[in-house]
Amino acid sequence: MPVLEFWYEFASTYSYPAAMRVEKVAGAKGVAVRWRPFLLGPIFGAQGWNDSPFNLYPAKGRNMWRDLERICSDLDIPLKQPPFRFPQSSLKAARIALAHEKEPWMPAFTRNVYVANFGEQKDISDDQTLSQIISRHGVDPAPAIAAANAAESKQRLKDQTNEAIARGIYGAPSFTVGEELFWGNDRLERAVDWALR
Amino acid sequence: MPVLEFWYEFASTYSYPAAMRVEKVAGAKGVAVRWRPFLLGPIFGAQGWNDSPFNLYPAKGRNMWRDLERICSDLDIPLKQPPFRFPQSSLKAARIALAHEKEPWMPAFTRNVYVANFGEQKDISDDQTLSQIISRHGVDPAPAIAAANAAESKQRLKDQTNEAIARGIYGAPSFTVGEELFWGNDRLERAVDWALR
Repeated sequence: MPVLEFWYEFASTYSYPAAMRVEKVAGAKGVAVRWRPFLLGPIFGAQGWNDSPFNLYPAKGRNMWRDLERICSDLDIPLKQPPFRFPQSSLKAARIALAHEKEPWMPAFTRNVYVANFGEQKDISDDQTLSQIISRHGVDPAPAIAAANAAESKQRLKDQTNEAIARGIYGAPSFTVGEELFWGNDRLERAVDWALR
Repeated sequence: MPVLEFWYEFASTYSYPAAMRVEKVAGAKGVAVRWRPFLLGPIFGAQGWNDSPFNLYPAKGRNMWRDLERICSDLDIPLKQPPFRFPQSSLKAARIALAHEKEPWMPAFTRNVYVANFGEQKDISDDQTLSQIISRHGVDPAPAIAAANAAESKQRLKDQTNEAIARGIYGAPSFTVGEELFWGNDRLERAVDWALR
């Protein structure tokens, strides 16, 4: 079965619709998805950005939110701009997703974190928010979070982010099929087709 | 007839496929196109960029060229990276397009300048390149270029760029339908559909 690697950042706005539809779009063509959370912060930092480009460049940010409204409306998924802070801190959620990447609940966990972030105005860096989401999958949240906070899990997320950089990734969502890199939610269909070549 | 405004910059890579397909995509749905050349330089400058973001951020630039290869291949239009300089100076071409925006040859002139830039490795700031393109439309190039270099034409391009900024435009290509703004070649279909609402 051909494999599409889906590189996402929990704080990234366009990663939200991508996460919500990637399995459906890929699955419809017989392509498997490998979920690969990483952090954009170190990548943006290396480019001299200390904040999201959507904050640094207000005209770009305004149109991004409007564009995302149109996209989420088409997909019939909720969208409410985070009221307290954008981008949210995604570190804990990313560590959890990566530490448990082999668990069958990881994709649903990922989708639920995105809905909490962009649909429900919840703080995704809050242990309670994360625990509630983990519980929904019939998993005991305390050990799951403890495993994600272990030194080894922290290192794994650093390694995964470094792998993203080494593969030429500079934004999220991104998709890779072997060496081929696609950037942006709007490139999902093209990336799936590439996996079928 | 509903109208789609197409905002483009002759030096912009993704404006190239957009220019090549905008009339076909819009026309198929009964939407008219208003061609609106403008300059990105002043907009990028106001954001603190003294060069294209595709040069400032090399990983982004590399993937843009690869992505554009895939897009141009699908559209069956030529692509050769400008060998001497990217982005090219688009000032003269933009003044010509705007000074003659009511002429029936202006859309074809625009497409031909894009092909010269991104398909034929020609210098689009060279009067000879521009004259040859204008001649192809049965127009005498010398007075056409002279009209574009008149003080009034220079001012018109400044005004058009300022209108783009006032409308929230921050990149090219962009599409507007009334107040609604869409950014990127990949938003063309969505913008056309919006014009039909």
